[in-house]
Amino acid sequence: MPESSDIRMRGFHDRSSVEEALEAALDGVLPLPSEPVGVMAAAGRVLAHDVVSSVDVPAFRRSMMDGYAVRAEDTYGATAYNPVPLDVVDTSMPGTVPDVQVARGQCVTIVTGAPMPDDADAVLMVENTSGSGDRIEATAPVPVGRNVGRVGEDVAAGDSILSSRRVLLPQDVGLLSAVGHDPIEVVSRPKVRIIVSGDELLPPGASPSGTKIVDSNSPMLAALVERDGGIPEVVRLPDEEGAMEEALAHPGADVIVTAGAASVGSEDRVPILVDRLGSLSIHGITMRPSAPTGIGTIDGVRVVILPGNPVSCLAAYDFFAGPVVRSLGGRPPEWPYLTVRSTLARRIVSQIGRTDYARVILDEGLVHPVAISGSSVLSSVTKASGFVVIPAALEGYPEGTEVTVHCYHGVCDS
Amino acid sequence: MPESSDIRMRGFHDRSSVEEALEAALDGVLPLPSEPVGVMAAAGRVLAHDVVSSVDVPAFRRSMMDGYAVRAEDTYGATAYNPVPLDVVDTSMPGTVPDVQVARGQCVTIVTGAPMPDDADAVLMVENTSGSGDRIEATAPVPVGRNVGRVGEDVAAGDSILSSRRVLLPQDVGLLSAVGHDPIEVVSRPKVRIIVSGDELLPPGASPSGTKIVDSNSPMLAALVERDGGIPEVVRLPDEEGAMEEALAHPGADVIVTAGAASVGSEDRVPILVDRLGSLSIHGITMRPSAPTGIGTIDGVRVVILPGNPVSCLAAYDFFAGPVVRSLGGRPPEWPYLTVRSTLARRIVSQIGRTDYARVILDEGLVHPVAISGSSVLSSVTKASGFVVIPAALEGYPEGTEVTVHCYHGVCDS
Repeated sequence: MPESSDIRMRGFHDRSSVEEALEAALDGVLPLPSEPVGVMAAAGRVLAHDVVSSVDVPAFRRSMMDGYAVRAEDTYGATAYNPVPLDVVDTSMPGTVPDVQVARGQCVTIVTGAPMPDDADAVLMVENTSGSGDRIEATAPVPVGRNVGRVGEDVAAGDSILSSRRVLLPQDVGLLSAVGHDPIEVVSRPKVRIIVSGDELLPPGASPSGTKIVDSNSPMLAALVERDGGIPEVVRLPDEEGAMEEALAHPGADVIVTAGAASVGSEDRVPILVDRLGSLSIHGITMRPSAPTGIGTIDGVRVVILPGNPVSCLAAYDFFAGPVVRSLGGRPPEWPYLTVRSTLARRIVSQIGRTDYARVILDEGLVHPVAISGSSVLSSVTKASGFVVIPAALEGYPEGTEVTVHCYHGVCDS
Repeated sequence: MPESSDIRMRGFHDRSSVEEALEAALDGVLPLPSEPVGVMAAAGRVLAHDVVSSVDVPAFRRSMMDGYAVRAEDTYGATAYNPVPLDVVDTSMPGTVPDVQVARGQCVTIVTGAPMPDDADAVLMVENTSGSGDRIEATAPVPVGRNVGRVGEDVAAGDSILSSRRVLLPQDVGLLSAVGHDPIEVVSRPKVRIIVSGDELLPPGASPSGTKIVDSNSPMLAALVERDGGIPEVVRLPDEEGAMEEALAHPGADVIVTAGAASVGSEDRVPILVDRLGSLSIHGITMRPSAPTGIGTIDGVRVVILPGNPVSCLAAYDFFAGPVVRSLGGRPPEWPYLTVRSTLARRIVSQIGRTDYARVILDEGLVHPVAISGSSVLSSVTKASGFVVIPAALEGYPEGTEVTVHCYHGVCDS
């Protein structure tokens, strides 16, 4: 047997709590520096700074309606039975500069968004006129300022329009475009190296064969990293120390997650390597699944060692790696899952001193624990609606307890 | 004045309800054909068919723990005070094919995920042993089957594992990888042509200047289309009929949305063109903002004519274009916004016969209508938490009403 197997076989004698592990994972993690992106590529990115507009929008008085720019006082008293005639002396088009005078009894055809002539102070809606061409009639009065957008009505120069750390919405990039704020400084997306190793693993896309299984962690982790705003770089390795060492020490990643290496000795090999190449602050967590998780640092890069069993890998990613990826990217470390409060249809048993990640199905307003809970049974998390966390201080929850379900399908974008 | 201005200036005499317009928008819209994608690129895509596994996962009995594969009966009665010695005759590694016999009093070192030797029927955890090397001692008994994953425990051949129309989660692509289901047939992403026109518009990235404004609709609509699973193609045009006609009639889009063309006559130009090139079923909707929305079809391609004012454009996209994009992509047509129920801090006034899209701010559990509600004031939708829809049948909501807020920031991925 390889020498390291004795180390491996010792079990975890000194496990850390979930809270200690999360603290270690996030220790010293700060948002990455910003990078400039064009406005067409900025949606979904995280703003690095507050944005203050340097311009007024609009920069000119504009019509809010299709109609006629008038001197409001000309229309006072107008009704359908007592229409007031107005001479149409020009047309104001969006993007033009009107240079016409609007004298008493005159008006200018104007469409939504077009600049107001200087002497006009209201826009009479088409619906409140009759006739067309050179001469129309006002059939209702319009007060001063009605249907006129003032300078800076949308945004005034000097206005703070969006705050640092905001995940940019579609309308936000619209507004940034409108104020001419381009490029936009956003927090860089963290580069996340995903190292998956195991001689038993066939690459994604292969068919399982004999005792070889197909790697499910690479595609799952890459998707989780994308969800959390990171850029995944998948490195698949044979179960071999030299290759692992190179992948761990190679520069270019902002955070490293490893998964697997499940052959004898190798599950300890990664923590041992991390400890040798840098420091290992956590190995072994009082949690089920995901107990074999580890946390370390190499050359200032946080390394999160995830178990190879896919359910453990998913839970450990969400508990410890996801918060690092999200924090590096300027996002809140909290889970992006939506939560619902609902009632347990059946008790969930746990152990005092251990945090449990219980998969559940929401059905007709009740929470049903998923029967098969093995950490290798990936279908338990595809059948589940979400999960319930049982804190280490509790022995579980009795039937009828109202619990918080974190829903796999309802993922927020911020 | 151009001839079309008279048409334009007629106002909308025959507006459709929001419900009629949505029905027209979705009429005949079906999910696009499927396309194959690799498992590494499948997360977030929409499954085109039910997926049935053709294999067992695992395909072999495997260990669920690190420990020793034993004949369970050998361990019966073992305690720390009465340990049972076992000879370690081999090691089972993941991906290997164990060819050792496990006789009475023998065991095999085994790690999580490794195949079980034929004669072993349980795995004794490391924690329930002492010693190491060639000879260990069991310090606790283990029942038959304990810590052994059976063939097909995760997925059995013939199991239906994921249903058509599912938006694939990270764990789903993991499971698809594990069963060797690659490539995966997913609904094609709709190609959405976004046609923005207006002589007053400067391109995104420019600075506003004089009476020229910077196009905010292109980046906003492109981001909305991406959110809804579509592939945006932005076409920016001068306010010129020939160019618009070419963009409308050019093949290659699964759906077309137009925005703007706000100069005299041109707001009607698009509906008139759509009617000439195909058919126009809706023009003018009893809604505020977004009244000038239109819906038509050219060569079987749905065309949604959005107003140029950015708030109107956003609302009209969400009401009428988004559902088309989502349906073409196999997603539910419903808004992806999360909703919360909360109490109005101040009344919202509306008009009977008109659907209102009221921007609101959620603050300390109360819903505050956004004061500035002009359809050109884009900052009203960047300041707002979300919106409340006031149905056409109501005059608004009094203060204290519990209303449903659709939250801009809480966007679901399915």
